[in-house]
Amino acid sequence: MKEKEFINIIKDLLNSKYIGDDCAYLKDLGITITHDSLVEDIHFKMDYITPYQLGYKSVMVNLSDIAASGAQPAYLTVSLSIPSDITKEWIKEFYEGCKIACANNIEIVGGDITGSDKIYISICAIGKTKERNISSRKNAQIGQKVIVSGIHGSSAAGLKLLSKNQNEPHKLLKSHLEPKAQIEFGEYIAKNVNVQYAMMDTSDGLAEALSTIANESNVLLEIDFDKIPHDEEIEIFKNWQDLVLFGGEDYQLVATVPEELNFGTKIGQVKTGLGVDIKYSDKKIHYTKSDIDKNIFNHFNQ
Amino acid sequence: MKEKEFINIIKDLLNSKYIGDDCAYLKDLGITITHDSLVEDIHFKMDYITPYQLGYKSVMVNLSDIAASGAQPAYLTVSLSIPSDITKEWIKEFYEGCKIACANNIEIVGGDITGSDKIYISICAIGKTKERNISSRKNAQIGQKVIVSGIHGSSAAGLKLLSKNQNEPHKLLKSHLEPKAQIEFGEYIAKNVNVQYAMMDTSDGLAEALSTIANESNVLLEIDFDKIPHDEEIEIFKNWQDLVLFGGEDYQLVATVPEELNFGTKIGQVKTGLGVDIKYSDKKIHYTKSDIDKNIFNHFNQ
Repeated sequence: MKEKEFINIIKDLLNSKYIGDDCAYLKDLGITITHDSLVEDIHFKMDYITPYQLGYKSVMVNLSDIAASGAQPAYLTVSLSIPSDITKEWIKEFYEGCKIACANNIEIVGGDITGSDKIYISICAIGKTKERNISSRKNAQIGQKVIVSGIHGSSAAGLKLLSKNQNEPHKLLKSHLEPKAQIEFGEYIAKNVNVQYAMMDTSDGLAEALSTIANESNVLLEIDFDKIPHDEEIEIFKNWQDLVLFGGEDYQLVATVPEELNFGTKIGQVKTGLGVDIKYSDKKIHYTKSDIDKNIFNHFNQ
Repeated sequence: MKEKEFINIIKDLLNSKYIGDDCAYLKDLGITITHDSLVEDIHFKMDYITPYQLGYKSVMVNLSDIAASGAQPAYLTVSLSIPSDITKEWIKEFYEGCKIACANNIEIVGGDITGSDKIYISICAIGKTKERNISSRKNAQIGQKVIVSGIHGSSAAGLKLLSKNQNEPHKLLKSHLEPKAQIEFGEYIAKNVNVQYAMMDTSDGLAEALSTIANESNVLLEIDFDKIPHDEEIEIFKNWQDLVLFGGEDYQLVATVPEELNFGTKIGQVKTGLGVDIKYSDKKIHYTKSDIDKNIFNHFNQ
């Protein structure tokens, strides 16, 4: 994967303790910070997403990373680059989507707007860490259980429908076009877990998040596939199990927490070993990091 | 100007007290934050800038905004979108430029890397406000003097040379390709001025910065053109006075400070009235906001 190779070059060169998690935890400032970009025709196509949905989703993508850190999303900056044919109405709708995604307690405080050939959206989000126990993907502890915040595979199923110009089932399309960051889930964990724990969002798929936590924490995650929640409607696809495991952009959270925490949906266990074991009703498959990397949707390989 | 129209739509919609200055001052976190993007073929062309210079300049552009706020630049996130033909060597050189621009006291703590058709760089910078008096473009006070940190017009002169494939004078090219944020100048002002004051960088040209301060602070800035420092070599251009006033990307700082502060180069005075008066040896021209806006290089009008 070219993207991962590039990230390794950058990590080696910058030699920063902060690079590795989706958010950097800046203790001296009491914040976590994340920065993600969405590029037209790579991450989205204007054929099927409205300006409102694009604004909404761009914000949610970044709030999701803050939620995964355990921090309280507080501030955003939005940098938007747009072709010259973009209208005032488009801009208004886009920012209305951003504003709705921010609800009443998150504020857009800056950014810029420039020209470009295609639409580029780059958002930086800041979360407050006060009175929160901040996660790290390196911190899964043997004996903890693995929990998730919601259903998996719907966003990838929605994208498949959109790419075939299908408009039903609407809720699958909506999962892809208007995902919701699991802010309350992250908040509950960060306020109620008082030991080290791992938490990530499933932006690149559930299996990728599990694999990253397993490899960064040097543990084995034993997952019971039948316990992973999914919407039955995705079973219209032959390979729906792949959508559940490898489909991206559900923006659910996955966390390793003490067994006694009565919260979320338990899908597995943290054990000694390395990688991810997935138990199906009739078999168990071991996935190494490279097995999972091969299945991840990669924007560089399109 | 389409860009300004869009900004007004966004301001109206978001109704945020933070939007207006180049940096947002988040008092509860003790930071200022800025976020600017550079787009290939809009803000730069790979024909004449090296990956190292591009990384260096992209960082400096954002550090300049933090310096203008009066804060101490501390952290950056870098989001980079690149076409599939970009090599590992390119990535390494680009981040080497970023790292050198950060020196030893500013750290890149995160960001992302994605695919795209063209190169797109989006950087978010954070400055610490502790023990600093933070500026606002709204805060120029009548009776203050107007000072600048250095020479003006060299970057625009360098760009003119580059666009004609000329390689001399080298220092003009370097002004454009490797501008230096005036961090120490900003620091001195923020630590030694203890009244309200305005400070901006000259990313969009000196006249634009003066006009913005004048209009946001509701004052007249009376400027003595002959006192504005410039490199004599730019006088090879017939319209070199325009380069000094309207040429962008010098990334110098302009500030309004008490008369008694013995620092910087005085170029004028804050008076009652509105707009910018520029005194030349033989005449005085009054520039309204719209006069200046018409002369500003606008990325949307290319």
